[in-house]
Amino acid sequence: MMKALQWDGDSLALNTVAKPKAKAGEVLVRLTRAGICNTDLEIIRGYYPFSGTLGHEFVGIVDAAANSSLIGKRVVSDINSSCHHCAMCQAGMPHHCVNRSALGIHGRDGAFAEFLTTPEENLVIVPDSLEDDLAVYAEPLAAALEIQEQVNFSRHEGVLVIGDGKLGLLITMSLAQAGLEVTLLGHHPERLELPGLDNISFCTTPPDLKFPVVIEATGNPSGFATAVQLTAPRGTLVLKSTYQGNLEFNPAPLVVNEITLLGSRCGPMDKAIALLASGSINPAGLTQDVFPLTKATQAIARANKKGTLKVLLEMGG
Amino acid sequence: MMKALQWDGDSLALNTVAKPKAKAGEVLVRLTRAGICNTDLEIIRGYYPFSGTLGHEFVGIVDAAANSSLIGKRVVSDINSSCHHCAMCQAGMPHHCVNRSALGIHGRDGAFAEFLTTPEENLVIVPDSLEDDLAVYAEPLAAALEIQEQVNFSRHEGVLVIGDGKLGLLITMSLAQAGLEVTLLGHHPERLELPGLDNISFCTTPPDLKFPVVIEATGNPSGFATAVQLTAPRGTLVLKSTYQGNLEFNPAPLVVNEITLLGSRCGPMDKAIALLASGSINPAGLTQDVFPLTKATQAIARANKKGTLKVLLEMGG
Repeated sequence: MMKALQWDGDSLALNTVAKPKAKAGEVLVRLTRAGICNTDLEIIRGYYPFSGTLGHEFVGIVDAAANSSLIGKRVVSDINSSCHHCAMCQAGMPHHCVNRSALGIHGRDGAFAEFLTTPEENLVIVPDSLEDDLAVYAEPLAAALEIQEQVNFSRHEGVLVIGDGKLGLLITMSLAQAGLEVTLLGHHPERLELPGLDNISFCTTPPDLKFPVVIEATGNPSGFATAVQLTAPRGTLVLKSTYQGNLEFNPAPLVVNEITLLGSRCGPMDKAIALLASGSINPAGLTQDVFPLTKATQAIARANKKGTLKVLLEMGG
Repeated sequence: MMKALQWDGDSLALNTVAKPKAKAGEVLVRLTRAGICNTDLEIIRGYYPFSGTLGHEFVGIVDAAANSSLIGKRVVSDINSSCHHCAMCQAGMPHHCVNRSALGIHGRDGAFAEFLTTPEENLVIVPDSLEDDLAVYAEPLAAALEIQEQVNFSRHEGVLVIGDGKLGLLITMSLAQAGLEVTLLGHHPERLELPGLDNISFCTTPPDLKFPVVIEATGNPSGFATAVQLTAPRGTLVLKSTYQGNLEFNPAPLVVNEITLLGSRCGPMDKAIALLASGSINPAGLTQDVFPLTKATQAIARANKKGTLKVLLEMGG
């Protein structure tokens, strides 16, 4: 048996449940750290009809695997499990597999537990030099890096990131690391003291110019409206947030200014681990609090407080 | 003096006004035909705060010009007048000039009149072989062609056009002419009898598959919702319509499916004239009614009737 923080569509509880068993092609991972993401909070607010064990940002140790060389290895994992057979998989887009499950989000139990199972092919090995408290950022950093997979940045082009929450800051770090000139619109100038943000322009009110690339990472409708306003004609607006419920907006500026609005989701875990391992991106300062798994409901309450950065869960120990 | 159909922000009237005078760099055009566009109807519904002479789809004859070789030439004109000095102009995007005016839409009197003025540089000469009743389609056809300027179509990729109104049909004709496999979702199967639409797949209810490229040309919010639903993951949704007021939608599918939403406006007038002149695209069948300018208010009422295709105005004669 094991402990797992579960959502039943209605309430949240730390339950004692059966330890999962790895199916063919899967490994069993003993979790050591997990991170709480806004998506977890939005599931609890009713954004998505998931029930089961929450959590998709994690690092752990392979506990059981058909491939015995994996046992004992520290790993992170892509959260999307794909079928390899559908049209999207065949077209080289396994993240968009029509039969996919996603750890702690859709059709598969997640990481706020002592153990989880995940396909062996989804694993990325964590180098020994990279500690758990950093490796746990691989998934959200990969989501930030997805922007660079989608947008063809000309170097030195101005980029505006809206939102200085944990995702906005990871995006800002990743773009700055890539050599782009980043302006960050947010409410917390003190957060610029985090490593990797020394060359960032910061503003607390919308600047008086438009940007060829704007990234919306506030997750609220007013952030979206600001983003539309600050995107230059023929520019690109990246929608990185998920929102609970509907957005209402005037589409005329999108049409008149021929703006490209780009939805963006999960990204490359291997690149994230490489950037964390080399120290090129150091998100340690984003961690605001760490709770043991046994206090997972308190951890969720903490993460739900406005202005909180990353809250981690620590397993075992 | 001359007749002009004018909107004062509150009501529509056929006024007798002074004949316009060409400024430096401009020519005076005597209009022969004009077309009524949904944008005209939306201005009258309050979509855009314009007042003055309406109309931006037209063909006419140069009546006065500094360059005397132009006098007597039949012409169409790009509707956007740009400043050549602002950052957008300098960046090669004169259609997005921050100081621009647009005929009959913004800061410049339009084409539902006996005469208009337009910059000489905006003119495209109409070949003798191309009659007025076809040349008058140059502006909306250019807007349809703009999609091909923005989207990198792989040949034989499936494209879905939503909306079989006049803009949707022009878009369908232009994509079919370019060799693309087009499915049209609409309410009027009989419109497939128009030239250039013989190889189109037509459906009256949303098909049971998703498309890599979807073009929303209905101009209503339910069309937009359908478009989001029918765009394949990583696909492109082109927003060709302008909408009166706000759109309310759930942005989650855009983010989760990493959809590119692309606003699209005015296009290349020279390419439109070339395709019309060669007979590659023949929109004659889109013309539903022709009124003399003296009956312009009746023409607007006709165009406002649900299900009406193109209504033209005929000047002089």
